[in-house]
Amino acid sequence: MMTDEQYMEQALREAEKAYEAGEVPVGAIVVINGKIISRGYNQVEQLNDPTAHAEIIALTSAFNYLGAKYIPEATVYVTVEPCLMCTGALYWSKVGRIVWGADDEKNGHARITKDNWPFHPKATVQKGVLAEKCAALMKAFFREKRG
Amino acid sequence: MMTDEQYMEQALREAEKAYEAGEVPVGAIVVINGKIISRGYNQVEQLNDPTAHAEIIALTSAFNYLGAKYIPEATVYVTVEPCLMCTGALYWSKVGRIVWGADDEKNGHARITKDNWPFHPKATVQKGVLAEKCAALMKAFFREKRG
Repeated sequence: MMTDEQYMEQALREAEKAYEAGEVPVGAIVVINGKIISRGYNQVEQLNDPTAHAEIIALTSAFNYLGAKYIPEATVYVTVEPCLMCTGALYWSKVGRIVWGADDEKNGHARITKDNWPFHPKATVQKGVLAEKCAALMKAFFREKRG
Repeated sequence: MMTDEQYMEQALREAEKAYEAGEVPVGAIVVINGKIISRGYNQVEQLNDPTAHAEIIALTSAFNYLGAKYIPEATVYVTVEPCLMCTGALYWSKVGRIVWGADDEKNGHARITKDNWPFHPKATVQKGVLAEKCAALMKAFFREKRG
């Protein structure tokens, strides 16, 4: 069994793939019983689809792999706070535990959801895991983009 | 140019396809310059994917068709109030106008977002178009399901 930090390192690897592809660097993995069952990174530009976020890609891959659409036993690790859309996807798939790295003041769900719990009622959240590392990758991307 | 009610009738046709397929009966269309460019209905069960909502299917179809990921000139008609996930997808795609039929107290976005504007800052919303008809289809579905 790996630690949250070790799993987040795996999500960071996905984020780095996004970075290298010129995408906003966010990565996610889905873990069940200690096993990584799917991975995803932001592919909005590559797929020309603004819904192709890391979490959505990792989740749909998990549904396909498992043949299940509800995965309460899963933990999703994502390098950046989920947006409203991804938060809704995590709700619908009943993901039991969500762990993220850096907060996202601009596009994170909390800007809109405030104190209203948007995840599944039984879900738990852990934030701030490798937050600085996850945030540093985002900052590097936007700094480079601004040129 | 059709009226909002006429476009909503088209979204209702999609919802009826969902109903006939044993899916929660929600339908959506994307309209640009008066033309319906894509359609979608809820396919969560068929695709075994809890993110396969009518709006997501209609939106991704529109991105593919147009080769564009931002569609500010579009109006999305959906028979039921968008959930948190679909609201986020409408935000990311910068859809300019959202029209829905029936409110959804349980799963509509407003239960979580409350008074915080979750759509694109420039987007406008019209609700209550053919609301009774849209709600009646939902009620029939859940009544039958409880059987």
